[in-house]
Amino acid sequence: MEKVRANLVEGKLDALLVSHLPNVQYLSGFSGSAGALYVTPREAIFFTDSRYDLQSHEEVKDCSVRVSRGDGFTAAIKLAARRRESRIGFEAATLSVQAVKRLKELLPGKKLIPSINLIENLRITKDPFEIDQIREAVKLGSRAYEESLPLLRPGVMEMEIAAEIEYRMRRYGGEKPSFETIVAFGERAALPHAKAGNRRLRPNEFILLDLGVILNGYCSDMTRTLFLGKAPRKAAEIYRAVLESQQEAEDAVRSGASCGSIDAAARRVLNRRGYGKYFTHSTGHGVGREIHEPPRIGARQKMLLPAGAVITVEPGVYIPGYGGVRIEDMVVVQDGGREVLTPSPKELMEL
Amino acid sequence: MEKVRANLVEGKLDALLVSHLPNVQYLSGFSGSAGALYVTPREAIFFTDSRYDLQSHEEVKDCSVRVSRGDGFTAAIKLAARRRESRIGFEAATLSVQAVKRLKELLPGKKLIPSINLIENLRITKDPFEIDQIREAVKLGSRAYEESLPLLRPGVMEMEIAAEIEYRMRRYGGEKPSFETIVAFGERAALPHAKAGNRRLRPNEFILLDLGVILNGYCSDMTRTLFLGKAPRKAAEIYRAVLESQQEAEDAVRSGASCGSIDAAARRVLNRRGYGKYFTHSTGHGVGREIHEPPRIGARQKMLLPAGAVITVEPGVYIPGYGGVRIEDMVVVQDGGREVLTPSPKELMEL
Repeated sequence: MEKVRANLVEGKLDALLVSHLPNVQYLSGFSGSAGALYVTPREAIFFTDSRYDLQSHEEVKDCSVRVSRGDGFTAAIKLAARRRESRIGFEAATLSVQAVKRLKELLPGKKLIPSINLIENLRITKDPFEIDQIREAVKLGSRAYEESLPLLRPGVMEMEIAAEIEYRMRRYGGEKPSFETIVAFGERAALPHAKAGNRRLRPNEFILLDLGVILNGYCSDMTRTLFLGKAPRKAAEIYRAVLESQQEAEDAVRSGASCGSIDAAARRVLNRRGYGKYFTHSTGHGVGREIHEPPRIGARQKMLLPAGAVITVEPGVYIPGYGGVRIEDMVVVQDGGREVLTPSPKELMEL
Repeated sequence: MEKVRANLVEGKLDALLVSHLPNVQYLSGFSGSAGALYVTPREAIFFTDSRYDLQSHEEVKDCSVRVSRGDGFTAAIKLAARRRESRIGFEAATLSVQAVKRLKELLPGKKLIPSINLIENLRITKDPFEIDQIREAVKLGSRAYEESLPLLRPGVMEMEIAAEIEYRMRRYGGEKPSFETIVAFGERAALPHAKAGNRRLRPNEFILLDLGVILNGYCSDMTRTLFLGKAPRKAAEIYRAVLESQQEAEDAVRSGASCGSIDAAARRVLNRRGYGKYFTHSTGHGVGREIHEPPRIGARQKMLLPAGAVITVEPGVYIPGYGGVRIEDMVVVQDGGREVLTPSPKELMEL
């Protein structure tokens, strides 16, 4: 909150209207599904509706709490109309045109100023408490993954494995998957965004599992690729290339390294081994309250990683009609190095 | 698509840029997570990125398909820039200010026209195929609910029951819950949006279960409230009041009835029985590709229900510190009546 305030002063804003729910939750501690904030250099006010009366008073820190009959966002605007702050920022990357139209109607005479990623950029650097929360989410994801391995037998359906993984996430306290669990067998492992479907597992093929869970408001994300049976030479070679690429990229992570340099490290290995053209996405992304948040770990991304950023490192090779391999860890950026959060082994597992 | 086109002509638009994913999926048949449409009175073009190359060609109907290296929305804008249509509608209720700014930059010389709920309003009336899809989703939800009943024993945790319900949804083919499953025991049943938590079930209290699943792109939504043990007189009285309210509201559903009249029917019973002030939300909402979509079944909503609309009917009574009861079905509006989709019994179940 202090940093937001410093940013207000710097950006010459008298107040900021925070409407994007992950940002509201980040600043206030509120875990419900509807709320808004009005932040000035001296004050922060949290707004929600009557469904969250009890919960908001229990959870919200560092803000005064106002519960209204209608929605919190409208209540925040109405308050702004009665106050003397005149230059008011709003979150332009997420607020709809329609909502901004309403802002303009209800705040005549105010100067409304689009603000982009102000809070998202602050969220890039996680504090030790947040890193602990993320570590717990990552552990939970790995546990669900590892418990699903004995179920990977010929004949099992992709969606059955997804159900088993998500069940364990939930049983062990997770709120929900942080994205739709990907379980892809054989040639379907070549689709980077395969949905778990009716496909049944057959001997001698790849198994790609990409999964994440939300625990206490923080997301995890991991991918492992296995082989049912003894991997033939081609499959083992692809796997080794991706593993080396993932490892090199991970080794390049440290505070002050550019996002682009991490991507380049991953790509260099795959290019050298002749698989560069099969690596069709970027190397990673930030993870926190949202499963995809800044920074982007992609080609030519100039941003320098700060200590405390949490990112994925996830190169992959996808060969249409044949299959694919992706290996993904979550990593905390540190001064002079990194902590790999994901505890699951990465050596090729032949089931 | 024909209706969209008729609306374009009526609204004097040369083209409509469709960016809201449920609308894109509704019009194109695409089930992936990223795409956009450019619709003119004579043509419809679907845009997505390279991850969905194969899938879009398999799924998309009634549109030509273009796969681009970058995101589909940007590709759609770039196409619009090269074409002669000049009055171009965009979806103002869901598109961010930032995205519209980009629209304006990339489409100088075009007239950009905010369009609100154009496709959402068409989606209110479901065709027989959609109603079948919804019926299947509702059946799946009811099956997961009914199979969870034997697990409701003293000592079980709310989140364990949520995990069991969601596991069954997934095992039987559902994509994911249509919202975070609500399992609320005892006094927590008085919170209309309780999250399933660590609370353990104790004898002689209410159990409120509110759950839904997405199956083949369509959502279900249901609520049942049970009692562990023999319900004392007060609990049974509240239950009877809510059941009567729910039944009366359901009986009021028919094509041509106003949304407000359904809400009034529910509220009349609860007012008469002295529980009106404990019914703190509206009576229902439309359900389809989104769990909450038009129409709203609330006080003073003047819209007349068309045949083919699918809505929830879900009055509730919430007594702070004591507990609550909500009963919710999904209902198809028909000429002269309604079809109740939810097969689970509604009589008070004492476990």
